[in-house]
Amino acid sequence: MVRWEPDARGRLERAAMELYSERGFESTTVAEIAKRAGLTERTFYRHFADKREVLFSGSPMLSEILLTGVEEAPSSLPAIEAIASALARSAAMFDERREFARRRQAIVAANAELRERELIKLATLASVLTDALRRRGTPDPAASLAAEAGIAVFRIAFDRWTEDPGDQSLAHFIRESMEELGAVTDPVRPS
Amino acid sequence: MVRWEPDARGRLERAAMELYSERGFESTTVAEIAKRAGLTERTFYRHFADKREVLFSGSPMLSEILLTGVEEAPSSLPAIEAIASALARSAAMFDERREFARRRQAIVAANAELRERELIKLATLASVLTDALRRRGTPDPAASLAAEAGIAVFRIAFDRWTEDPGDQSLAHFIRESMEELGAVTDPVRPS
Repeated sequence: MVRWEPDARGRLERAAMELYSERGFESTTVAEIAKRAGLTERTFYRHFADKREVLFSGSPMLSEILLTGVEEAPSSLPAIEAIASALARSAAMFDERREFARRRQAIVAANAELRERELIKLATLASVLTDALRRRGTPDPAASLAAEAGIAVFRIAFDRWTEDPGDQSLAHFIRESMEELGAVTDPVRPS
Repeated sequence: MVRWEPDARGRLERAAMELYSERGFESTTVAEIAKRAGLTERTFYRHFADKREVLFSGSPMLSEILLTGVEEAPSSLPAIEAIASALARSAAMFDERREFARRRQAIVAANAELRERELIKLATLASVLTDALRRRGTPDPAASLAAEAGIAVFRIAFDRWTEDPGDQSLAHFIRESMEELGAVTDPVRPS
């Protein structure tokens, strides 16, 4: 019989994030996370595949939001604007969990294995967006260039957002970085 | 006493690439590589740290060429053009080894661990280029956007070059993809 633990997932997540911040990701065990949350290891594994998943469980939702964002962008929008609109849609998901995002960013930055996993996550998102652009008729290499450049914008905007002491939405930094990309690439526009 | 083996490194590399293509990277052992090259395992380890290094031993040279390329670009060049000129400089290194590059690309694409290593290599290059741009006075986030977008261009140009049946230089695909980036990002230029 599975005993129902109120907000077990949230308690495990908070306990894990605290421990990763205090002792580092590597030195934290699932047993310690469960203990701090006042729950069992078995309960942990009902919610997360492993201790890394606490940090990456949002990826499928992010991927879904971005994909839907591109699919629902008006077909008249140029590829890069379809990407910009998809990225902007994802901002709300992060704004709601700003403290989690900031803490997560610091934990990932401090560990080589997590940084690699993050790179893989972002490369996977770029490839999902490339395929979505192709389906709406963007040819190659424009599709992959727009998707990869968009993910670079997202990564840079995200860093700026987590570093910013204020409370502006991630969407603001996405817009700003997207314009900056436009300005930076201006010299290589075909004349 | 170390016996000198004529072109031991080249023989080991060729043997490794043949075996990775025939049986896959994972299923190939260093013993088999050495055997096919008619050399000992010890000789292999004098030239390569492990079997993965056969595929990544060019990374430091590529990094060096790109770094020098940005450093020696005229200071009047905009950041993205300094990156474009650095990328173009690296083309000769690849053009000379086109068959190796094509084969390597197929081997890396077929193996998850190698794809991850490749992502890390490219992320490291982007970060080297970002720092080089900062040193020549490009502010953030323009520096990281130009570097990340440049590496996306490089990756896409490289894929197209290895897939192209002709014998055009990698530089041609870099130029083309760079212009395509300019065209793709045109809609997000600040007006």
